[in-house]
Amino acid sequence: MTASPDLTSVFDHIERNRSAFLDRLIDYLRHPSISAQNIGITEVGQLLVGMLTGIGLETSLMPTKGHPMVVGRWQKAPGKPTVILYGHYDVQPPEPLDKWISPPFEPTIRDGRLYARGVGDNKGQHFAQILAIESHLKVHGTLPCNVILLLEGEEEIGSPHIADFVRANRDLLQADLSVTADGPRHASGAAALKFGSRGVVSFELRCRHASRDVHSGNFGGVVPNPIWTLVHLLGTMKNAAGEITIEGFHDGVEPPAPEELAAIERLPLDVEAVKVSLGLTRLDAPADRPFYDRLCFQPTLTINGFHGGYGGPGTKTVLPNEAFVKCDIRLVHDQDPADILRKVAAHVAQHAPEVEFVATKMGMQPSKTPIASPFTAPLVRAFVAAQGVEPLLVPAGFGSLPNYVFTKILGIPAFGTPYANPDEANHAPNENLVLDCFYSGIRTGAAVLHELGA
Amino acid sequence: MTASPDLTSVFDHIERNRSAFLDRLIDYLRHPSISAQNIGITEVGQLLVGMLTGIGLETSLMPTKGHPMVVGRWQKAPGKPTVILYGHYDVQPPEPLDKWISPPFEPTIRDGRLYARGVGDNKGQHFAQILAIESHLKVHGTLPCNVILLLEGEEEIGSPHIADFVRANRDLLQADLSVTADGPRHASGAAALKFGSRGVVSFELRCRHASRDVHSGNFGGVVPNPIWTLVHLLGTMKNAAGEITIEGFHDGVEPPAPEELAAIERLPLDVEAVKVSLGLTRLDAPADRPFYDRLCFQPTLTINGFHGGYGGPGTKTVLPNEAFVKCDIRLVHDQDPADILRKVAAHVAQHAPEVEFVATKMGMQPSKTPIASPFTAPLVRAFVAAQGVEPLLVPAGFGSLPNYVFTKILGIPAFGTPYANPDEANHAPNENLVLDCFYSGIRTGAAVLHELGA
Repeated sequence: MTASPDLTSVFDHIERNRSAFLDRLIDYLRHPSISAQNIGITEVGQLLVGMLTGIGLETSLMPTKGHPMVVGRWQKAPGKPTVILYGHYDVQPPEPLDKWISPPFEPTIRDGRLYARGVGDNKGQHFAQILAIESHLKVHGTLPCNVILLLEGEEEIGSPHIADFVRANRDLLQADLSVTADGPRHASGAAALKFGSRGVVSFELRCRHASRDVHSGNFGGVVPNPIWTLVHLLGTMKNAAGEITIEGFHDGVEPPAPEELAAIERLPLDVEAVKVSLGLTRLDAPADRPFYDRLCFQPTLTINGFHGGYGGPGTKTVLPNEAFVKCDIRLVHDQDPADILRKVAAHVAQHAPEVEFVATKMGMQPSKTPIASPFTAPLVRAFVAAQGVEPLLVPAGFGSLPNYVFTKILGIPAFGTPYANPDEANHAPNENLVLDCFYSGIRTGAAVLHELGA
Repeated sequence: MTASPDLTSVFDHIERNRSAFLDRLIDYLRHPSISAQNIGITEVGQLLVGMLTGIGLETSLMPTKGHPMVVGRWQKAPGKPTVILYGHYDVQPPEPLDKWISPPFEPTIRDGRLYARGVGDNKGQHFAQILAIESHLKVHGTLPCNVILLLEGEEEIGSPHIADFVRANRDLLQADLSVTADGPRHASGAAALKFGSRGVVSFELRCRHASRDVHSGNFGGVVPNPIWTLVHLLGTMKNAAGEITIEGFHDGVEPPAPEELAAIERLPLDVEAVKVSLGLTRLDAPADRPFYDRLCFQPTLTINGFHGGYGGPGTKTVLPNEAFVKCDIRLVHDQDPADILRKVAAHVAQHAPEVEFVATKMGMQPSKTPIASPFTAPLVRAFVAAQGVEPLLVPAGFGSLPNYVFTKILGIPAFGTPYANPDEANHAPNENLVLDCFYSGIRTGAAVLHELGA
């Protein structure tokens, strides 16, 4: 399939401007915008307003109860669909700094990759969308469809205000679909079109028995141990077979639709390669569930950290007095964050009332768009036009994105068109984006606009 | 009962020298001697040699395969019994430093207590023994019985070499009994004479799955979590009712003898006071076993520490790749350390073969001296002379001391005459010794020598 003449001229423009586009991305990445540490958010928001206004979007910095939203609009194509292009201009904290080969805010090219905090997650990806819009406007003076570019400043701290913002601005955000370029392509490196994402909640379990640590000999047998209390509580929450055993936890978890099962069966899978790449001798239990079924359709209960008592060298015969566990849960289908947190709290209250349950992240809802959506076909054609291959259809992105504001609040389908390489090291030192992924992302963004307007 | 004239003059000497003795203890405590971190051991060993030589003991620093033994001898009382006075000059690591009100190696007096690492465990107690010897020698130029003062430098790391040392020096250590001043008085504050101690072994469970931490969203459900692996393994080792469920673990655990049961029935017990003193709302399960039965005659499995994954502020959606657990076991009766470690290793290999079992302290055997020993009466009289009350007879010290080298290798009875206050916070921040306990300890040490020679 060849691109139609007017998309071809946009592609040509992109090819001619590769070097200039890369320079501008590098400049953008030099500006830290770390939401968790409230560093640089206002500056980068204002920088984006200037950038979007400059390319011809009607742009505003809209306040929320947290960091502002950058909204850029072009709606001069009556009768054509309106797409919300979502991204986020905040980045993860760069720590630990000593693990970076080059400094996180001094973008550096090595071996065909650009290294910088936020290059993959998400500046490089939404900047590709911006350049796609700019390229259409430069070449044709118009866009093939209507566009609302929505850039959030709080995604990396869990998007606490986007739902209220979308509810309050429902009219301004009337659209037919949303498209988000975030996260990695498929692990195989293949292009992927994603139809949803798992939700997430986080909580802590804290236990304190005695008012101080005591000697394990003088008190062992009569003074309760908070680590044992947490171990036994956790054992009631997920069994050794990997099944989550919190009452009511699976309410709202539906079996996947036939077309979703068919889609995951078509996803490339080399379990041995996954194991080798992570140094694993086995995958997680239960082993009888298919790999992608567990990543797309199953909720998780992950212990992020467990800390209590002595952790130094050698031995210490202490009976510790306090310990804590940090956990997250990935939600699927119709699991609701508040409902799940209530169920976990009730489980803890029933099985270990002396353990304190603290919801630390109120959560992000899961989202799901039917593969049978009428927009699937034009988006697939856009990948073919830009990258020469059909994308894999991935029923659910494994990580969490606030796409539920589109599917559940606006009631429109939400798609993911991730451009980053699978080893982008997002949320980690040496975050990077393969340069070809960046250029291919601009082309894909341009093709998406083209196909939506065709 | 009044002290005999020659003991009275020793007591008078002690009273006159309270202030000087306290100053010398403070000076001794300024010298760290942390066996687990190999800090200051040699220095403090040499300091003790000088100190003991100075008071008139024939002293040597005897090598072992680890830290040296300090041995001070006075054996100029033919026909009188020989007592081994055992203590240890090493101390626990002081961490966590930020929990100390005053620095651990800057001894500080507050409210009639001296705060410093090692003040109760064990420097303040064996220093009291040394001052008891010194006081007899100063006042009378002689001792009422023969004394072998044996100070170990590795008790806090499990006394790995004392057994070999005692076996190799059996002739030099010929004695009629051993007396150890270590650990606390009875919880009620009453004086206690102890007839044995629980043994101890330590081990670590280490688990590593992936070669690096991964994102809990991108991999949750397929990448195994070492914290969950350890949680489920631990759940097979001790159940929520507090029963240790390792196969064969209770082999060698015998019911207590009638006189031992009678002794624990005479021990004061105020469970509410114990709970209040430690800020507890409950004691450990199983609650139906008598308090002292669990401390004297039951083995334990204590988790000393559990560490893995994120422990910082806020949340981090990480799926960690490694975690470890440090545990100790208190042994009773005929439980053998090597046998117990073999059984734990076999249990781990059966239930979680991917978890690494590491025996970190090869162990200390439990020990037991019959309450009916002929030395019980003179030791009880010594308490009466020094403190005005009969001591409680405690069948087993709850902590672990290497008294088995006396009972099982030398074949002599071993007694405990602990001087420290029950809330000494040994092995914990703000370790302290009530000053009156220190002075009373010196008096008791002097009276023990007197009564043994009577």
